[in-house]
Formats: sequence, C-alpha cells, structure tokens
Amino acid sequence: MNEIVQQLYDRVTSLPLVCPHTHVDPRMFADPDFRFDNPAELLLIPDHYLFRMLYSQGISLERLGIPRVDGGEVERDPRKVWQLFADNFHLFRGTPSAWWLQQQLRSVFGIEEKLASESAQDIYDRIAACLAAPEFQPRRLYERFNIEVLCTTDSATDPLEQHQAICASGWKGRILPTFRPDGVVDLSASDWRRNIEALGRITGIDIGGYRAFVAAIEDRRAFFKQMGAVATDQATLTAHTEELSEAEAETLFQRALRGVATPADAARFTGHMLMEMARMSIEDGLVMQLHVGVYRNHNPLIFERFGVDKGADIPIRCEFTEDLRPLLSECGNDSRLTLIVFTLDESTYARELAPLAGHYPALKLGAPWWFHDSPNGMRRYREQVTETAGLYNTAGFNDDARVFTSIPARHDLARRVDAEWLAGLVERGIVDRGEAAEMIEDTAYRLAKRAYRL
Amino acid sequence: MNEIVQQLYDRVTSLPLVCPHTHVDPRMFADPDFRFDNPAELLLIPDHYLFRMLYSQGISLERLGIPRVDGGEVERDPRKVWQLFADNFHLFRGTPSAWWLQQQLRSVFGIEEKLASESAQDIYDRIAACLAAPEFQPRRLYERFNIEVLCTTDSATDPLEQHQAICASGWKGRILPTFRPDGVVDLSASDWRRNIEALGRITGIDIGGYRAFVAAIEDRRAFFKQMGAVATDQATLTAHTEELSEAEAETLFQRALRGVATPADAARFTGHMLMEMARMSIEDGLVMQLHVGVYRNHNPLIFERFGVDKGADIPIRCEFTEDLRPLLSECGNDSRLTLIVFTLDESTYARELAPLAGHYPALKLGAPWWFHDSPNGMRRYREQVTETAGLYNTAGFNDDARVFTSIPARHDLARRVDAEWLAGLVERGIVDRGEAAEMIEDTAYRLAKRAYRL
Amino acid sequence: MNEIVQQLYDRVTSLPLVCPHTHVDPRMFADPDFRFDNPAELLLIPDHYLFRMLYSQGISLERLGIPRVDGGEVERDPRKVWQLFADNFHLFRGTPSAWWLQQQLRSVFGIEEKLASESAQDIYDRIAACLAAPEFQPRRLYERFNIEVLCTTDSATDPLEQHQAICASGWKGRILPTFRPDGVVDLSASDWRRNIEALGRITGIDIGGYRAFVAAIEDRRAFFKQMGAVATDQATLTAHTEELSEAEAETLFQRALRGVATPADAARFTGHMLMEMARMSIEDGLVMQLHVGVYRNHNPLIFERFGVDKGADIPIRCEFTEDLRPLLSECGNDSRLTLIVFTLDESTYARELAPLAGHYPALKLGAPWWFHDSPNGMRRYREQVTETAGLYNTAGFNDDARVFTSIPARHDLARRVDAEWLAGLVERGIVDRGEAAEMIEDTAYRLAKRAYRL
Repeated sequence: MNEIVQQLYDRVTSLPLVCPHTHVDPRMFADPDFRFDNPAELLLIPDHYLFRMLYSQGISLERLGIPRVDGGEVERDPRKVWQLFADNFHLFRGTPSAWWLQQQLRSVFGIEEKLASESAQDIYDRIAACLAAPEFQPRRLYERFNIEVLCTTDSATDPLEQHQAICASGWKGRILPTFRPDGVVDLSASDWRRNIEALGRITGIDIGGYRAFVAAIEDRRAFFKQMGAVATDQATLTAHTEELSEAEAETLFQRALRGVATPADAARFTGHMLMEMARMSIEDGLVMQLHVGVYRNHNPLIFERFGVDKGADIPIRCEFTEDLRPLLSECGNDSRLTLIVFTLDESTYARELAPLAGHYPALKLGAPWWFHDSPNGMRRYREQVTETAGLYNTAGFNDDARVFTSIPARHDLARRVDAEWLAGLVERGIVDRGEAAEMIEDTAYRLAKRAYRL
Repeated sequence: MNEIVQQLYDRVTSLPLVCPHTHVDPRMFADPDFRFDNPAELLLIPDHYLFRMLYSQGISLERLGIPRVDGGEVERDPRKVWQLFADNFHLFRGTPSAWWLQQQLRSVFGIEEKLASESAQDIYDRIAACLAAPEFQPRRLYERFNIEVLCTTDSATDPLEQHQAICASGWKGRILPTFRPDGVVDLSASDWRRNIEALGRITGIDIGGYRAFVAAIEDRRAFFKQMGAVATDQATLTAHTEELSEAEAETLFQRALRGVATPADAARFTGHMLMEMARMSIEDGLVMQLHVGVYRNHNPLIFERFGVDKGADIPIRCEFTEDLRPLLSECGNDSRLTLIVFTLDESTYARELAPLAGHYPALKLGAPWWFHDSPNGMRRYREQVTETAGLYNTAGFNDDARVFTSIPARHDLARRVDAEWLAGLVERGIVDRGEAAEMIEDTAYRLAKRAYRL
Repeated sequence: MNEIVQQLYDRVTSLPLVCPHTHVDPRMFADPDFRFDNPAELLLIPDHYLFRMLYSQGISLERLGIPRVDGGEVERDPRKVWQLFADNFHLFRGTPSAWWLQQQLRSVFGIEEKLASESAQDIYDRIAACLAAPEFQPRRLYERFNIEVLCTTDSATDPLEQHQAICASGWKGRILPTFRPDGVVDLSASDWRRNIEALGRITGIDIGGYRAFVAAIEDRRAFFKQMGAVATDQATLTAHTEELSEAEAETLFQRALRGVATPADAARFTGHMLMEMARMSIEDGLVMQLHVGVYRNHNPLIFERFGVDKGADIPIRCEFTEDLRPLLSECGNDSRLTLIVFTLDESTYARELAPLAGHYPALKLGAPWWFHDSPNGMRRYREQVTETAGLYNTAGFNDDARVFTSIPARHDLARRVDAEWLAGLVERGIVDRGEAAEMIEDTAYRLAKRAYRL
C-alpha cells in the first residue's frame, strides 16, 4: 500500500460495521448459548460461492456434504469435507473467496497459515477449538466485530420469532428483519399457493382476491416495521414495471389462485407489484431494495437434487431505462421513496443506472452485488458509476454475507478497494486529500446508514 | 504527472482548439458587445450535467432558477442559486463536472479557491467582475482561448441570422453552423408539422410530399454549406437504417402529414433518411454525424414543467452491426463519405464500432460522448477502441460544450487523459516516444481537423 | 518491467508452445522442402487483421494484392505491396498487429529496424533472404519455435491428405487436425448441398436423410480422431441450443435438401446439432470448441469481389445463459465433456460465461478471441473472468494464428500480459509469489494441454 492508500484505509479501520443486507440466520442471536457446529458447517456448507467452484471441477456436492432434498446419502464427516476443500483450495486463486477465507482465518481465528492439504487438519482443529469457546458465540462476535446494526432477510410469512426473542432478551445487538415478499408476489413460484395460504393464516385475512392480498402485504409490512425493519427486498428476473388496473390485477390473481397463471401473467403481476411496493414505501418509509437479473436454478439436476441457492444461479442481461420508467414516472420524483437497485449486468452501470440515479431523487444505486463484490468488481463499479452518478447517489457497502464470521473480512476488503480507488483520484488531481478523507468515511460507514435510514 | 506524461502534455498545451461540435449559442459572437449575465446564468443554468445532480438529491429545479415552461415562479436571484449550488458542490466529487468547474474558475477567471458554502459569494463577485470587463466578451475569449474554429448546432429551419451577422461583421473568428434536421426528419416529433411548415417557408418549397421534402432538405444543406457548414448531425433512438422505395417513403410521409404516422412509421422513415443523408453527403461533402441511443425526456414531470434538455435523457442499449448494415453496404465503401458515429453504450466500442470503423472506409468513431466525456470514460474509449480500430479511424476530440467558458477546460482534460494513456503505451513498450509524440498531436488537434475537413 | 513481472515472465520464456487452435495450412509441414514465397505472401496476404486496417483508410484490396474471386487484376509485385504496407504502418500504432509484426521481425528474422517507408525495401530483402535459407523451412521453424503441438482447422469433408503425408514422413512434429463441420451443419450456407454431396462421397454414405447425415458426421469424427484430432470446432451466429425430435430434425434436413430451408430452420438445426456434437464428444472424447457471435461477410462488395475472411466479419451481441441452457442441462454435468466457449462480446465474460464456467463441470472458457487477443483484451479477460470462474475453468492460451511465423510473438505477448496481471495480484496481496509462479506456468502451458487433453 502506498502512503495515501494507507492513510485513507487507516481512517476507517475502526469504524463500526453497518450491515443493511445479509443472509445471516437470526437464530444465532436469539439463543444466547448458540454455538457453531464445526468449521465445515460454519465456513463451507452455507457458502455457495465456495462449493460451486469445487463442483465446477467435477467434485460432487454429495462429497462436499451438501444436504440432498431427498435426504440421500452425503458425506457426514466434516473433517473429510474440510480436507477435500483444502485439497482444492488452489482453485480459488485470484478470487475474493480465497482472500475472505484467509483473512477470516487470520482476523477471527488467529490462524496465519495458508489453507492447503497439509495444513487442513491442523487448521480444522484450531477453528473447532475456537468455536467451542464462549467468546465465539455469535453475540460475542457481533460485539467484537464492532457491528452497529445487522439486517436479516425474511420471507413475508415469517413470524419473526427469532427477532422477537432477540428483542425480548434485552441484548443490545441490533438485528433487524427485512421484508422479502418474493414468495407471495411471484405467481409462477411453485409454492405460491402454499405461501398465500400461509400469508392468510399469519395475517388472519382471507385472501380470496387481489384487494385482500394487498391488505395482507400492508399488514405484514406494518408488522415488520414494528419489529424494526427499515427495508424491503425483492428479487426479480427483469426490472419490468407496469401499472395494472385493479381489474387486471384481480384477473391475474384469480388465474393464479386457479393455478392457470402463465409466465407472462406472473411477469406482469410482478411488474405491477413493484409499483405497489414503491407506493407503500412512500407511505410507510421502508426503503425498497430491488435485485434484478438472475436466472435462478439454471441447472435442473442440481435443483432437483439439492434445491435452491446451490451456486447454479446465472445472471442475464438487464434493461432499466425502459423497464423502470413506469415506476420512476410515478414515484421517482418523490424523495420519500428510496429505491435501491442492484444489478449483475455491469454494462448497465454507466449506460443506464448511473444516469438514472444521477437524475431521479428516489433512486440510489446499490453496492456491487454477488459476483461483483470483488476487488475488480468494486473497482469497475466505482469507475463506471461515480463520474455520472456521483458518490452520493450510491447506497454504500453491504456485505450480503451468508457466513457470519466473514462479515469483517468483507467490509475490510471493500474498505481497502475504496482506499485504493480514492488514492488514485487524489494522485490524478481529481479530488484532494480532504475530500478523499470524507469520501472514504462515506463509503465505509455513512452512505449505508443514510440510504437505509439507520 | 510522471515525466513522459508531462512531456506529452506539454507538446499540446499551446495547440489551437478545434471545436467541431458544440451547443454554444452563436448570438454571443454576432453581437460584438455581448456580455454574459451573471455567474449562475453563465455556468449553471445551461449545464444540465450540473443541475440534474442537484435535482437527484432532492433540490427542486425551481430553486435552481431553471425556467418553467409555463412561466411559473422560479428563483430569480442568481446569488441565491449560486449559493445553493456551492452548498452542494460536494455532490460532484469525482465527477468531471467538478474538475471542469474548478479548472474554469482557475484558468478563465483566475480564481484558485475551492467552491464551497463559505467561498460562494466571494467567487460570485469575482466572476461577476470579470464578466463586466470587455476582455470577457465572447469574441475576446474566443481569441484568448486560442480557438481555431467552432461549430454550432442549428436546426434545419434556422435562418442562420447570427452566422450571417458574424460573417458580415468582418470579425475573423470562425463560427460555422451544423445542419441538424431531427425536427423535420422525425415524424413522431410533436412539432413535426410545424417544422415542416417552417421548412416550406424558408425554402419556398411547397412540401406536399416526400419528393418536395427531400428537395427542401437539399436546399437547406446547400445553404448551410454556403454559410460555412462542414457537417450535419442527427440524433436517433437507434442506429436502424433501411432503404425504402420512393413509394413507401411517400406513404409514410403522407401519413405523417395527416397526423396518423405510428412510432414504427417514424422509425422506418428515420432509418431511410439516414441513408438519404449519407447519399447527400457523398454528393455535397458534408461530414455526417450520428448520435445514437438516448431515451429523451425520460421523466414526464420534468418534461412537462421544464421542457427538453433538463438532465432527464437516459441512454439505452444500442446495436450497430445489423442496424448500420444497409447504410454501410450502400455507402460504406465510399471514401467521399465520412460518417462519424457516437454512442453512449460502451459495450459496443470493442464489440461493434471498432471492428466496423477498422474496416469501412467511410466510418469513423466519434469521441466519447456526454457521460463518457470524463477521465475514465475517455480512458475506456482508448483502451477498447484503439487495439482494433487504430487511432486513425477515430474522429478526434470534440468538447460538445454548452457553456462557452468551459471549452478550454474540456480540451485540457482530454489532453491530460490522452497524455496519460499514451505514456502508458510507451511504458509497456507498445509505442515508442516518437510515435506517442505524433499521436498526442493527432488526438489533440489533427484528427478532428481531418475528420471534419476543417 | 518491474522485478516481479520480469521474474514471472522469465519462468515461462523457455516453455514449449502449445497451439491447440490455429488456421495454419498443414501443407507447409507435409512438404519437407516447402518455402514461403516472399514477405508479402507470408506476412500480409493471409492476415486480414492487417489489410482490413489499410482498407479502412481507403486503400483498395487490389493494390494490396488480395486475390479477387473473379481472377481480376490485382497488384502482383510483392515489393510494391510491401512498400504500401510499410508506408501506412503508422495506422497500426497501439494495435497488437504492430507489436506482433515488429516482434516477428526481431525474433524470427533478426531485424531490429522499425518498418517504415524508408526501411521497407531493405527489410523486404532481409526477410526474403531468410526465406530462401533452409533453416526457414516450416519444419525447421517449428522446431526452433519450440512448438510442442499444433492443431490445424479442417472442414468435415477434408481428406486430411496433408496430415497423412506428415504422419507418413516420419517427421516428429505434431500437427493435428481439428474437425470443423460448419459447412455441412449450417443449412443456410450457400454451398451446403455441395458439402453434403462431398460428405457422402468421402464417407461412402448415401446422405438422403438426417439419420444418414449423423452417421456420416460420426464417421468423419472417428477418422479425424484416428488422425490425431483432439477437438472439434464450430462457429455459430448465436449460442442457441435446442433439442429437436428426430422427426423435426428430419423435416428440417429434408427441406434443406430440397433447397427450401429458411434461416429460422437453419438456426434451429444448428442449435440441435450443437447438442448432438456434445453427445458425440461425451462418447468419443473430442473436446468441443464453440466460437459464437460473428456476422460474417458484413460487406457485400468485399464478399462478392474477394470472398470470405477478408476483414469484414463484425461481432454481434451474444447471449449464453438462456441459449446454452438446453445443452448444459443435458450434458453440462458430465465431466467427460469439455466444451470450450469463445466470445467476442466481452459484456458476457463477467455476466454469463464466468458464472457458467464457475459452475458446470463440462464448461471451460476459451482464450480471448480475435479482436480481444490483445494487451487490453487479455487484461480485461483476466480481470472480468478470474474472480468468478477462477483460473482453472479457463482453457489457456491459443494463438489462433494464420501466419505461421507470428506464433512465437503471439505466445510471447500473452505471456507478458499474464506476467503483468499476476504481478499486479501479488502487489495487491491477492496471491503470493509462489501461487503466481504456478499460475503463470498454468496460463502459458499447462491449462491448454489439460483443456485440450494434449
């Protein structure tokens, strides 16, 4: 690191971690005695970034201990799984996964050794020893990691019992739910009718039609908000938005109830519900997150055998300028709305999203997502977004973590990359040191707090 | 700057500025006593790069003094507008707008201070004092800026009175019109029929049909050329080109006259007229500029209240390989034609435009446009275009300026970026110092002159 | 070069060259007394990278000695052609073509001078003198270049006489054919029926229908494999794959036999044959190469006058996530298949191809192709692919050479670029020196051998 990079990085190393978007299980904070099972269960099994790479080289998911949908035989010995992972750790050279893992070993578990075939069992033992110690309980780690707030992602029908338990426990950690209604909004989801029934049960509303459905959504939003939620989140295949008349919405909803909705129906209904969600956000103040453009469960064999989130989700090309226009025409000028958009199609950064975010008061651009949450990915994002949207139309960093102990490493990597980026701007005379100093604090801490109203 | 960058940059700092494409108002050169009103009117109000960013953060255009279509109340005190701008100048950190503005303050007005809340009124006073001085009249600045030639952009029906006055005045500055026929070519423009009437009036041709329309276009081209024009310019949503039979063209034209042309009709007619314009260029030698891929007036609220060019124009994805084929098949092998294409879809640089420009004699690739006329944007252009198209199939720099006093800063930034780029090529052994020295002069001066036949 | 770059580069300079994909003519190795004609015939005439650039600046292909389809008059004096090339060599500044040419002059012919108008004839003489010497016979150069294996590209109906002659000669050079069936698979090819007849003749199979066609393909694959082939290659406009029933395939095939197949028929049949070829590869072990997304013969004037491969092939936008899904669903989990995909649409690197290659065991990502086989192109590939796919889901370098003597320069450039890239990873702490050392050997040598099973 050169001197400017170091200075910028040093300014933010002790700032708290703001985690507005994670996939961490709240259960670990609800139970004060929660312990992580073992190194493989903690670090590998929940991380599809990792096991998909091993799979791509011909290592079966069964050998990696990934549970099968049918309960079929998979490797049960976490030491064997860990050894297999370590034997193939060279596959991750040059990927952020390798960096995060080594940094995690170092900063969380005090292990400086490189993960490799020879060191695998020793590292396993040392992590396992840590996990058995009380200071590695999640609540203790939350405090040690200097986390200020952590938002989970929760389905619309989730009773939020874990969050209630956390509140009731008196623990001061701030674990907030996020309202994710995909399961009840997507008419084409295989379990949609089951989800609607669950939604009816939990709200006590008889969801016989569209109007009752909207009422149930509003009911749940109110409950999530009461439980501390600051945001909603939706993941859609495209950014298509469209205003349906109530009659049209009702027709589509009824078709879905009868099990005869087409994919086109589902796409239109989702586009309409994005507009509804935006209007609800204007009313209740929940920040609206939108993740666009993933072909989920691309590999039918993996989906049938292992279910969702198994590393077989593949991005597709996206369009925002035309697709978001109905929503932005209706709600984009309203500063009460904060719509944070995430994409995996980097060609839209400079072409569509930065110009849109550089104009509409309601729109902010989310952090580089998923595959792009990496040194080059974050660098491309800064270089392609900032010149048009500025820094202050971006929503700051979020770690999107599935593995709780990876959170500090993820924030640390982002802070390093931003320090390098800003030092480059200083060196080229584009910003001065004073500006860079404020900007690094913005990217590391303030922007996320402000965008998510935390 | 390292030594090679400095050396390259120094070679071109005193070269004249060639400005083949601007949106500067020729009125300022027609009247020898023209004075700019005040700092806000000069620097902020015409620059939608600036006020759109303030708008994106919830500052209303009314408060920024942007005139309303309906003449409704807006801020009239330029000092208040300037203060509001300065109070929010941090929003531009890392954008070229900030760099251009500070460089303008420095090199045009001799102000070294940073624009900020505290310095706003002092800077306002100092600029205002400059603007009152005779040496800040546009003609004097033109000379001081070392401008060699400056092309304006003028509608097909413009009588070019300002240009005539400039000619008649005997002043030696070279201010040339550019023929921009969008208003009469785009059948879907809301004011199309009014424009056609104006075209009829100014040419004395009764435009009752397609053939008369083409004759009127040719008439105006001849007049523009006689007034010194070297180029035409068209802005289209897509690069679609298509040869219509005269009967088909006539049908579409008649439908438009009757007010029943569809958007599809308009798209086909535009595609056809691109081919016609190319043929006319082969005959009269006017260079043909084509700007592709902007969704104009994306925000209906802003359009209704403030009209066009208010920072709400958003790029869309483009296609050139198939869309330009009819035109290039017909005219692309003819060296008498120079077609300069501009895009906001950077994904087409390396994929489509560089291969096309690296093959067809008639095609040149225009400078990085609009949002991409920035340090990273210009760098990406060089890196993605040069390896395939070479330098000599590009059309050199143009500043695309709306604010006259920003012109030197815009050229200066481009020259710095090119010096850095070329120094990088020298350091990696890709070109030698002698080649880089010629190349920087080409990019800063010669390429634009050659491409625009100036 | 800094010290880390130098160290990494030095590790691989003496590694053999693995050339799994070239367009070199096997004739030069079949005849032990083969001599190259003259410098223009060797270096310029076969290289459409070069003459297209001259053409783009208005120099006719006739003056460059490119043979006309109709046998019409073209420049026959290679010295004049060479002089014209040299007079315009500045057009290649900043392109890899210039670098390759100068490096070739230096390392193959011992010429340090820069090619320019003044030096042209002297350089011509010196190259010509070399070409007359026995040590410049292709077999001797193959050995001097330290080539380990070189694969040619050969049509499905090629009798492989040259390869047979090479085998029969006892020479130890390893020149392997590659099975390229485009001419018989693409129903829309103008010479398709002629190719089918040739396929019938060479296999002795009466190709009256689809089933016989598949049998003939299988027959040829077996013959190519017997002749040492390790791979097939297909070039398609899109990546569309689709499973047809045998009845549907038969219908399309019959329509083509009757000369009434539509472009849509051809597209579907090609998509189906990609799946068939994948299945055959699972059976016979031939690696499957797929080059996607080029609009061939974009310029009708050039095509009519000079034929194919004349620098008028232009890339188009590509899609892989949806298009490859049928094939990958069927065969992507099978490690017996190696499918190597090449694209000219760089926007698919990070968005689609790296995530696909980072998941499916059968998929590898091919080297940066054609226009992107350049310093920036290779750099963009590494930066956009590696973080998601890792290094080990890429297929290593291939030189794609048309000019035999350019092969060492092409490998050398790739090795330099990779050394720079890896040094950057070391400097940023992403890999350590030991990892980088292994990775440079992988990229320079091992990955290609492994991917192509050589």
